[in-house]
Amino acid sequence: MAIVLGTAQYGKAETRVVRIVRDAPRHEIVDLNVSTALRGDFSAAYLRGDQRDVLPTDTQKNTAYVWAKTHPVDPVEAWGLSLARHFVDDVAPVQGARIEIERYDWTRVLVDGAEHDHTWVRSGQQVRTAAITVEPDATHVVQGVKDLTVLKSTGSAFKDFLQDEYTTLAPTDDRVLATALTARWRLTDPAAATDWNGLAADVLATMLREFATLHSLALQQTLWHMGTAVLTAFPAIAEVRLSAPNKHHFVVDLERFGLENPGEVFNADDRPYGLIQATVERDDAAPAGDAWWAFTGLA
Amino acid sequence: MAIVLGTAQYGKAETRVVRIVRDAPRHEIVDLNVSTALRGDFSAAYLRGDQRDVLPTDTQKNTAYVWAKTHPVDPVEAWGLSLARHFVDDVAPVQGARIEIERYDWTRVLVDGAEHDHTWVRSGQQVRTAAITVEPDATHVVQGVKDLTVLKSTGSAFKDFLQDEYTTLAPTDDRVLATALTARWRLTDPAAATDWNGLAADVLATMLREFATLHSLALQQTLWHMGTAVLTAFPAIAEVRLSAPNKHHFVVDLERFGLENPGEVFNADDRPYGLIQATVERDDAAPAGDAWWAFTGLA
Amino acid sequence: MAIVLGTAQYGKAETRVVRIVRDAPRHEIVDLNVSTALRGDFSAAYLRGDQRDVLPTDTQKNTAYVWAKTHPVDPVEAWGLSLARHFVDDVAPVQGARIEIERYDWTRVLVDGAEHDHTWVRSGQQVRTAAITVEPDATHVVQGVKDLTVLKSTGSAFKDFLQDEYTTLAPTDDRVLATALTARWRLTDPAAATDWNGLAADVLATMLREFATLHSLALQQTLWHMGTAVLTAFPAIAEVRLSAPNKHHFVVDLERFGLENPGEVFNADDRPYGLIQATVERDDAAPAGDAWWAFTGLA
Amino acid sequence: MAIVLGTAQYGKAETRVVRIVRDAPRHEIVDLNVSTALRGDFSAAYLRGDQRDVLPTDTQKNTAYVWAKTHPVDPVEAWGLSLARHFVDDVAPVQGARIEIERYDWTRVLVDGAEHDHTWVRSGQQVRTAAITVEPDATHVVQGVKDLTVLKSTGSAFKDFLQDEYTTLAPTDDRVLATALTARWRLTDPAAATDWNGLAADVLATMLREFATLHSLALQQTLWHMGTAVLTAFPAIAEVRLSAPNKHHFVVDLERFGLENPGEVFNADDRPYGLIQATVERDDAAPAGDAWWAFTGLA
Repeated sequence: MAIVLGTAQYGKAETRVVRIVRDAPRHEIVDLNVSTALRGDFSAAYLRGDQRDVLPTDTQKNTAYVWAKTHPVDPVEAWGLSLARHFVDDVAPVQGARIEIERYDWTRVLVDGAEHDHTWVRSGQQVRTAAITVEPDATHVVQGVKDLTVLKSTGSAFKDFLQDEYTTLAPTDDRVLATALTARWRLTDPAAATDWNGLAADVLATMLREFATLHSLALQQTLWHMGTAVLTAFPAIAEVRLSAPNKHHFVVDLERFGLENPGEVFNADDRPYGLIQATVERDDAAPAGDAWWAFTGLA
Repeated sequence: MAIVLGTAQYGKAETRVVRIVRDAPRHEIVDLNVSTALRGDFSAAYLRGDQRDVLPTDTQKNTAYVWAKTHPVDPVEAWGLSLARHFVDDVAPVQGARIEIERYDWTRVLVDGAEHDHTWVRSGQQVRTAAITVEPDATHVVQGVKDLTVLKSTGSAFKDFLQDEYTTLAPTDDRVLATALTARWRLTDPAAATDWNGLAADVLATMLREFATLHSLALQQTLWHMGTAVLTAFPAIAEVRLSAPNKHHFVVDLERFGLENPGEVFNADDRPYGLIQATVERDDAAPAGDAWWAFTGLA
Repeated sequence: MAIVLGTAQYGKAETRVVRIVRDAPRHEIVDLNVSTALRGDFSAAYLRGDQRDVLPTDTQKNTAYVWAKTHPVDPVEAWGLSLARHFVDDVAPVQGARIEIERYDWTRVLVDGAEHDHTWVRSGQQVRTAAITVEPDATHVVQGVKDLTVLKSTGSAFKDFLQDEYTTLAPTDDRVLATALTARWRLTDPAAATDWNGLAADVLATMLREFATLHSLALQQTLWHMGTAVLTAFPAIAEVRLSAPNKHHFVVDLERFGLENPGEVFNADDRPYGLIQATVERDDAAPAGDAWWAFTGLA
Repeated sequence: MAIVLGTAQYGKAETRVVRIVRDAPRHEIVDLNVSTALRGDFSAAYLRGDQRDVLPTDTQKNTAYVWAKTHPVDPVEAWGLSLARHFVDDVAPVQGARIEIERYDWTRVLVDGAEHDHTWVRSGQQVRTAAITVEPDATHVVQGVKDLTVLKSTGSAFKDFLQDEYTTLAPTDDRVLATALTARWRLTDPAAATDWNGLAADVLATMLREFATLHSLALQQTLWHMGTAVLTAFPAIAEVRLSAPNKHHFVVDLERFGLENPGEVFNADDRPYGLIQATVERDDAAPAGDAWWAFTGLA
């Protein structure tokens, strides 16, 4: 028996890169949180403290800033692919790279009804995500969104469920359904993608349409419909992973005060929360490789 | 010398009231975080543990829920005034009440271009706030906003400042200016208000216009212009209080890599941050009384 | 009527100063979050954008770092007083200064039972606070603690309270009482203080003793006893301000499952929470002036 | 090609169970955050909204509370195993269960030097974790800790690293090394464990000893030493996974002010941060199965 080094990666997490494009009076803003991880045989650093093969995380940060100057940051997927390729191709010991990006949306301020050229306000709770993985023999891109907080005030039921001796929940034909959705979808062939932003917008619209229009018998069913709708509409997507906290809105008991409450007054609770997770995938999907081997987010 | 009880208040903080209006197929949602505090002579509870005059905070929570059923929650200022009046008028020992409200915005989901009747997505970072104070002889309403995250990519300078032996900052003619604004404005006569939501929307638009269009020599000047523009446009407002963290966006030094960076690539820093606070007021404003005696938010 | 500038202050918030004292093999660490605000007539900056009297917040940050090198940072109250005096005495336009400090505790790591010379682990949830205010004619120091999370599993009741039509709470003779205490105490004469750290430790021990040993009829009563015990024991303290969220621990109803639950299994709830606030003071206390005019923490 | 349901799980996250043991005047407290997930063939719920096999997450919450009454909650690993076994053995459709537990530490308040019987204060930043996985043919337990915030003020270098055109970092022989460690270690045979709390305490002490005493040439080397020390000392542990953000403490440049700063004054930065992750394992370790398939924490 021996003690050995298993999987490992290292990098710079959460570099806050803001890129202003100011070639014209109407500026553009791209606001990113970039994490870069390098993979390969860095065992000398671990076993002996030998750093000769270790590109410092500080250098990775510098590189992200340089790339924001020298390569178009929008769409972030193409930019991240370029950055990942640089690490793998140009830094000898690096065999794989992972780039994780969060993108924050900004909306132009309206002044007297007109969009302002260089002033924005942050919009929405949701964050667009992208995860780029370059391996020696494969490249993966996973687009996504997190903290997409949605709510429907009717069109959701939960009943006819399994009951055991600890079940006290009352079935309901009509409840509030709310979640802060995390969804990530993997492209079969990143090299074939031509319109990353259009794809992300369309996937989001597809998922929101399903969330809104499906008469939901359970959050599980809603997730399945969201995932299948995406796979049906977008042949380029191999699989969709969804994680949905059920943000419970409890009907407040007002009968104690002689009042009816037919789904009008709710207590929005924090914890605990139901949590539903599922993968919807094509049965002939190309292998995912390291596409889902994450860098940040380990809690 | 004696030890005495000074100012005191107690209540229920952060009751998450969600009200769905479902009288028609097109539902409405009002999503609130409500805190209620009671003021008066509750010294028996403090000094002897005698609770006979103490309406439990649990009851205050129940009351907020009942009020959400029986009184229109929108606009929140009128609803909060009604709730505050109830505590002062109907609960004998209560001499004053403070209602603090946060309101979260939701936007209807678009399905095939049409607004959905009962599905929403959370919009924006900003939170609308309202603080209602009922005293024995006065009533105050302070409207506001917090976490209004805005950024302008040009039109902001900072130079010709005081220098001492510890000053190393380089002056600049052109920088990114960004903040997460907290602004609160006090009405001279809450009873005269007729369109709370219209007022809040117009005040926000006025402040955003000033932020966007003023060529700013300092965040201080921007705040002053925002405040004066509001007082000039809205005679009903007695004073505006502004607190603006300067969310620094530092130009990344790319010269080290042979690259120019004329305001294109920035590091968005977290801490420390400049913090500018100011009150802009009418010199003949009616006394504020307890309008600014807050309940929540003490850190 | 005219629009005028009211109260205002500006500065650098949350400078994270870590000071290592390494004059001997056994190092010391002082880990601080420092916020500095300057007060005075800075109206030219607000009204005209004229910065000639404005010492940049960046300079304030630099000054805090220099002071950490040149003046003993422990105790933080003396250090903060020195820093505040510098701004008021040495920077001409400055008429008043506010220094707010959070101090994080570290405990030495034990290696084979012995305290290590230069390795520590963060200890406790609580944060020590200090707020130093220098005005033209007065100086104030407010010591404090925040996030002191304490819990007692018995010795707390809540009953015989006021009831109205919305009261449903059941009275109890025995409950869990828990809070994340914020307490701040103002010194009558900061110049007379000789042992700041000893004072803070003794005040905390006094408050914890009262929290533990008082059979509490209400959180109000507990706060009063904590405050009076402090004022009784420490003649140098003029007043104590306490803010205590009642972190509710609800007894879970297990009768539904044929089980008793005599105060054994609880649900620790997040929101809403009761919030009790009180000032305990000497009736002949010296005026507080601007001692309580805070800089950070406005939400 | 068909669209199919891939991996899926559902459950109740973050049930805040507080258990007081009060059989004697000296009470005990166990403060937990419990998440339970069920695994198996729940495809009917996803594909058709058929809930007949779905035990509600509300029931899972109830069950956790019941288990806290009827089974000893300390050690949490044994308690979690019992709860997981219940779901798999007693609820027909359930084929696998995952229990994730966070445990918060409390320390007894000292009153006049003596430990109080029923009053505690929250201690430390770190959270103890446990993850129990029951599969049809295997059972796994992963113990751990997160947010273990440690710092050493000397005994750490970083030099002789790989340099490319974007490298600007200066090498150093002596720096502050700080991290908020997440570490998780998997037991080869959970059934053989006899003293879960003793094991966790000993593993933590071992890791802290290595962190303190190793003259570190890189955080990578420190992690490797921590992992190997654990595997060497504890034959029952199959592998250790470590994730360590490098919480940068930058030496402040005081030369600009004519001052030396030999590792005395630091700026503790927030973002970005280096992030180092590694697995240290036995080369003959038993297969991990689903031991690392997490439920909560997906960001």
